[in-house]
Amino acid sequence: MSDLPKSVRICEEGPREGFQSEPPGIATADKVRLIESLAETGLRDIACCSFVSRERVPQMADAESIAAQINRRADVRYTALWLNRAGFQRAAATSRLDLTGLLVASASETFGLKNNNRDRAGMLEAQHALMEAYASAGIRAFTAYVFTAFGCNYEGTIEPTLVIRAIEDLLSIHAGPEVVYLCDTVGQATPANLERLIATVRSRWPDLPLGLHLHDTRGLGMANAHVGLNLGVARFDTSIGGLGGCPFAGNKAAAGNLCTEDLAYLCAELGIETGLDIPALIESAKLAERIVSHPLPGKLKEAGLPRR
Amino acid sequence: MSDLPKSVRICEEGPREGFQSEPPGIATADKVRLIESLAETGLRDIACCSFVSRERVPQMADAESIAAQINRRADVRYTALWLNRAGFQRAAATSRLDLTGLLVASASETFGLKNNNRDRAGMLEAQHALMEAYASAGIRAFTAYVFTAFGCNYEGTIEPTLVIRAIEDLLSIHAGPEVVYLCDTVGQATPANLERLIATVRSRWPDLPLGLHLHDTRGLGMANAHVGLNLGVARFDTSIGGLGGCPFAGNKAAAGNLCTEDLAYLCAELGIETGLDIPALIESAKLAERIVSHPLPGKLKEAGLPRR
Repeated sequence: MSDLPKSVRICEEGPREGFQSEPPGIATADKVRLIESLAETGLRDIACCSFVSRERVPQMADAESIAAQINRRADVRYTALWLNRAGFQRAAATSRLDLTGLLVASASETFGLKNNNRDRAGMLEAQHALMEAYASAGIRAFTAYVFTAFGCNYEGTIEPTLVIRAIEDLLSIHAGPEVVYLCDTVGQATPANLERLIATVRSRWPDLPLGLHLHDTRGLGMANAHVGLNLGVARFDTSIGGLGGCPFAGNKAAAGNLCTEDLAYLCAELGIETGLDIPALIESAKLAERIVSHPLPGKLKEAGLPRR
Repeated sequence: MSDLPKSVRICEEGPREGFQSEPPGIATADKVRLIESLAETGLRDIACCSFVSRERVPQMADAESIAAQINRRADVRYTALWLNRAGFQRAAATSRLDLTGLLVASASETFGLKNNNRDRAGMLEAQHALMEAYASAGIRAFTAYVFTAFGCNYEGTIEPTLVIRAIEDLLSIHAGPEVVYLCDTVGQATPANLERLIATVRSRWPDLPLGLHLHDTRGLGMANAHVGLNLGVARFDTSIGGLGGCPFAGNKAAAGNLCTEDLAYLCAELGIETGLDIPALIESAKLAERIVSHPLPGKLKEAGLPRR
């Protein structure tokens, strides 16, 4: 319990992954309002939207409009997700987003087939195609994601060797990503398998900067984050209010991103710098809750900061 | 991260603390049904009701009826709460409960005044009176509780020295309680203050068996429990489904006991024996949810056990 980082970078996924998990129909203006509210909390990375199939993901059909309407702050990175070259080019065409070279791999090949319609070789090929597009666009910052790093609804337990193989694939595309996220895509991370996986990855690449993209699917999200912090992990994807865990949307596979303000509170209590204004985050969480019109799972927004 | 206990005893508080936090009106038959369901999950300690003021706590006005109606299993302890001699005598008069010598102290004197209407000396005097009653009843098992061990809504931060003083008071009444529970009464425990408090208590009483009574008020409940497990704590109070955290009851001070089945899942993943049948706990949690007619905060009951 001793390798806590001095500071942690918390990247906000609520407007992107959170709203994407809600039923379609959230007004673009509300999405923009939440993004602008989040930008006032000290967050420096806000995932705003996804450039993916409008048919498969109607919740993100307004991605271009979102990008166009954000009133940008100079000190915030407004990011987005895409899964292929066409998606990246849509994002780039807005000229309103901070483009990072996203690279993805799936530890579970079955998940990659179901989610991205590609086997391992196909995923790798798609990342090569993306690299060419990134090179043409002059992109210098890269972020890598390993999906289903802890388990898979199709394959069950994912052995660390599969994650190592996925990271090898990612590093073969770009040797120096800013961070490699281990994603608990379907909520199977536990303190036990998380500790084992991080130890395995570190024994292979001692200096690779790791991030955690956690979900609170089975109630262990914050315990997992705390284990990650104790192992020196300094980058986390979270969502405001725990957005994305709508209990009414039938989205059981990955219910609930780890909650931004609750993690910010944990960090503050551990003496870890985040640069975040927790009361401002609580206000944003309440705004998110009003926008989706149902309770969100985050706790701190209900209780408030404790009296000290 | 290395002092995990081999086994953990999880004591169920849902029918008692959980239902007490809900609006009045839950049918006695439903309470009994939940207790009987919980008794089939491997739980060996179930807090069934409170013998407290019927005016102040109308939710527990049917305590005698609950005790009378439970179809008891021989291998389960059916326990109850009381705060004074009159309450204990009501519980004893049912002849249907497993009586333990409850002893309580409050680390925050202000909380004791507000909750029990007694200052420190008055609390101590009340415990002496209870001891006499326990002696007359031939009680041999004792359980001690320190309220507000981590913080207080009135006094703010609670220094470990105040907890030490409260434990001194408790041990002056009975030197060998089965367990001393550190209670996060209002949800201010964090991994940082929990680790510090346990270290302080252990440095004074290395062999005192400690328990944790945690709430998930600010999203850190499971992370706190995991820290406790890593420090060898082997006894936890929890409630099925996280009952007691009703977001609609205005009960913000101590919203949400730690969830029984989510903690049982964490223990199982860490290789810690609990004797609990997790699918059966999930069924009980769903029953609790049907009884209170609103979503409960537990996560595992939504997601189910992961595919392995």
